[in-house]
Amino acid sequence: MSIQSRYPDAYNQCYGCGSLNPAGLHIESVWEGEVCVCRFTPGPQHMAVPGFVYGGLLASLIDCHSIAAASTANGGTNDGPVERFVTASLKVDYVRPTPLGPELTLRARTEAFSARKVQVVSELLAEGSVRVRGEVLAVRMPETMTGAVMP
Amino acid sequence: MSIQSRYPDAYNQCYGCGSLNPAGLHIESVWEGEVCVCRFTPGPQHMAVPGFVYGGLLASLIDCHSIAAASTANGGTNDGPVERFVTASLKVDYVRPTPLGPELTLRARTEAFSARKVQVVSELLAEGSVRVRGEVLAVRMPETMTGAVMP
Repeated sequence: MSIQSRYPDAYNQCYGCGSLNPAGLHIESVWEGEVCVCRFTPGPQHMAVPGFVYGGLLASLIDCHSIAAASTANGGTNDGPVERFVTASLKVDYVRPTPLGPELTLRARTEAFSARKVQVVSELLAEGSVRVRGEVLAVRMPETMTGAVMP
Repeated sequence: MSIQSRYPDAYNQCYGCGSLNPAGLHIESVWEGEVCVCRFTPGPQHMAVPGFVYGGLLASLIDCHSIAAASTANGGTNDGPVERFVTASLKVDYVRPTPLGPELTLRARTEAFSARKVQVVSELLAEGSVRVRGEVLAVRMPETMTGAVMP
């Protein structure tokens, strides 16, 4: 059962990872011990140039996976409800090109500064080697973003 | 005529901005004086939580727009062929939530360190205020990424 499938229904429409967005990417994350893991196989449309994955998709994977890790960082395990976090900042280093075709694996570790603020460091691998490194500062979703949902 | 429409056909399939990717976002950029400008209206599927734009899409807009600016930074104007650049690193600061619905405007400025390496600083606005700031280090596409294209 993925972390994203445990988000509250009212906030589970994210294009990247929302269980309730029929057009979305449905990125899914789970904890495997100390490491939060995501596996994703891009489609042929997710191309940068022939043979390689689009960097914006890789940034999206880093983003949604890191938010899942952050939202369960404080005692997070693989069950129970999850509070929604959002991204304050995202840093992505494209260490080497990511081949289009193979399944990608993301591995994230968290450092909780407080109940509201979590730093997430991650790496994305293809064919056994690191292709992308990510850093995300995640914050608990502010009240300014909850107003659009009807009570 | 957008910068992206001037990319060589062999490298114009990018999911974010490729003119030849039928499933892609078709992000388009043009120079307006010293500033490279992109306008884009997200679709309803590009949601983070209700009322707000998905951060991964915003990162994709920063990415493709910055690459367009970088690829024309050395004497780049609004005509002629364009060399392909790729993203070495991407930094996105989500200054405040971006409302879903209005057209977004991106404004980028470039600093060319060399013919191969360009720094791009950008901002993304909605309803007249800055929502996102971006920094991209762009490099000319390396030969390791051209191998997948048949001569």
